[in-house]
Amino acid sequence: MSVTAAKGFTAAGIAAGIKENGNPDLALVVNDGPRRAAAAVFTSNRVKAAPVLWSEQVVRSGQVSAVVLNSGGANACTGPQGFQDTHATAEKAAEVLGRGAVEIAVCSTGLIGVLLPMDKVLAGIGTAAAQLSEHGGEKAALAIKTTDTVHKTSVVTRDGWTVGGMAKGAGMLAPGLATMLVVLTTDADLDGDALDGALRAATRVTFDRVDSDGCMSTNDTVLLLASGASGIAPGLAEFAEAVRQVCDDLGRQLIGDAEGASKDIKVEVVNAATEDDAVEVGRSIARNNLLKCALHGEDPNWGRVLSAIGTTRAAFEPDRLNVAINGVRVCKNGSVGEDRELVDMRYREVHIVADLSAGTETATIWTNDLTADYVHENSAYSS
Amino acid sequence: MSVTAAKGFTAAGIAAGIKENGNPDLALVVNDGPRRAAAAVFTSNRVKAAPVLWSEQVVRSGQVSAVVLNSGGANACTGPQGFQDTHATAEKAAEVLGRGAVEIAVCSTGLIGVLLPMDKVLAGIGTAAAQLSEHGGEKAALAIKTTDTVHKTSVVTRDGWTVGGMAKGAGMLAPGLATMLVVLTTDADLDGDALDGALRAATRVTFDRVDSDGCMSTNDTVLLLASGASGIAPGLAEFAEAVRQVCDDLGRQLIGDAEGASKDIKVEVVNAATEDDAVEVGRSIARNNLLKCALHGEDPNWGRVLSAIGTTRAAFEPDRLNVAINGVRVCKNGSVGEDRELVDMRYREVHIVADLSAGTETATIWTNDLTADYVHENSAYSS
Repeated sequence: MSVTAAKGFTAAGIAAGIKENGNPDLALVVNDGPRRAAAAVFTSNRVKAAPVLWSEQVVRSGQVSAVVLNSGGANACTGPQGFQDTHATAEKAAEVLGRGAVEIAVCSTGLIGVLLPMDKVLAGIGTAAAQLSEHGGEKAALAIKTTDTVHKTSVVTRDGWTVGGMAKGAGMLAPGLATMLVVLTTDADLDGDALDGALRAATRVTFDRVDSDGCMSTNDTVLLLASGASGIAPGLAEFAEAVRQVCDDLGRQLIGDAEGASKDIKVEVVNAATEDDAVEVGRSIARNNLLKCALHGEDPNWGRVLSAIGTTRAAFEPDRLNVAINGVRVCKNGSVGEDRELVDMRYREVHIVADLSAGTETATIWTNDLTADYVHENSAYSS
Repeated sequence: MSVTAAKGFTAAGIAAGIKENGNPDLALVVNDGPRRAAAAVFTSNRVKAAPVLWSEQVVRSGQVSAVVLNSGGANACTGPQGFQDTHATAEKAAEVLGRGAVEIAVCSTGLIGVLLPMDKVLAGIGTAAAQLSEHGGEKAALAIKTTDTVHKTSVVTRDGWTVGGMAKGAGMLAPGLATMLVVLTTDADLDGDALDGALRAATRVTFDRVDSDGCMSTNDTVLLLASGASGIAPGLAEFAEAVRQVCDDLGRQLIGDAEGASKDIKVEVVNAATEDDAVEVGRSIARNNLLKCALHGEDPNWGRVLSAIGTTRAAFEPDRLNVAINGVRVCKNGSVGEDRELVDMRYREVHIVADLSAGTETATIWTNDLTADYVHENSAYSS
């Protein structure tokens, strides 16, 4: 399934030896057409990895034949040599696939500031190309994992056409425009503009509203490739909704596997004056370390929600704020509400509703708690 | 010493029973004149505690006779009743001290969203007033502690006049304008405008540049009281420098005692286009949880510094960024620099220099690492 659920795609995932532990670390996704339309969104971090700079150029043509993805190294902050390495990766894939290098997107993930072992990457591309298969989606999804404990795939099938995808991401997970590495494929018969519209609409309300640890990556990439192999051109609204569903599902899987997390926290901001206000407030709550610690300790500490709201520029009056945690309205009119002892915090999912009483707009941000395991995972070794 | 180092001040600190564990929790600082000039800065959090709303009014007159401070409860998000409680606190202090309530500032710290036990607060004010002493500064500093492991005081003495102070703060420590509770006293013979100028200049480059955990409090207050008891009116520049030194020393003590921290991290941003750019970049680095975890693990992970810089709006080119950690230039021109193995990370203080190569401005932000102890302290019980 995964990226090979849609007709017209093959994929492979192999262990090229980039990771010292021998785990799978190189994936190849190939669009066999007849179309080779594509769209993409990339990190808004101004420090961009070499593969992001390269793939931005590739996608500008609206035509992508294949994607090479590696884990085991982000190839970020690696200077001119890093960019040459990405270029060489695309050239190698172009050679073995018989395509042009300008149609090969490249994605990398792993430690920042380290050059890739290019001999292993280039040899791995040959090995992967030899294993390309219509059933290779699962292996490709496995090969892009870093600190992920599970691989993430999603498929939506409609009347004769399909959108599928894979994602990786567990830390440095606070996308500004996209999140980590995601490849989506479809056999719908649509051009690059249609893909671009659907992809931007979907990521804006899904990956862009996942904020696990407030740390924006240098490598975030979401690619959407269309083969047209179904011969069906769905309506744009229907297609966009299918893409949104796959993105939403993958985003939810990213949160569910975030580093060290024991709680998945849905921060729903309601009655905001504008959608931007709702997103700003949601993100401020989602990034409050003290609140994230409290929720880890199963303490519905709504004071920390209010102190986070108070740091934003959103329209609200402090004495009209309401907060519900898991259905209990613990804060009414900016002050003490129902008894916090009534809040049942035993489950993994926590639902916070912050009511700004300032309008009718809403937005939902997904985040995680902050745990000793997160600290351990990010302090015990370089990642 | 502390707030009673300057002539013209008495203070007391007692256990009023606000804290369930019986620790000191109520302090009184009284200005015996002849002057009763004052200035203050308060949190820029828009959700402000009742004592902040009250004290803002008091300080507007430029005249403060006394300050009542309590730990064991922040009296924040407590609605009209909370404000009435602060008012009653000031009225009680006015009564026992023979002053007007409009000259009594009030500061509270502790859990948000809980009403104070007012019977204990009011009785405690009487007890504290009976124990006022020229040597009471130390006890006052002890009574305002919450999760602080040590009390914080500082004194600078010049030719015939003195600036002294006390501070509390260990978590929710990312001031927008001031930090946590700080009372500064001086016997210099200066009016409210002179105090205000010196205090704002000092806090802008000291407390405002302390950012332990990115969480801005609802109760931050810094008060500066002048008794004029020395009979000396120092030059404003000299006075401002003395106030800055005391603020700098107290701010450094706050970082040194931050919840769960094992590293004090000095983030120095140099060669920025503007001071605002330098502060924005410094704060972005200081708030990056992944970097804070890495430094806890004694890993000089400069990639996380660059990814944090990349999220700001500051002027810079990615390929002109340089980063030194403890004197080793681990990142040159946005890419791999000297060997990260050369960085000695054994000591509590870590010094990061981020060179934007974009101008001549500089700023320093102090922060801490992120540790499992921080998570434990903020998840195991409500604070």
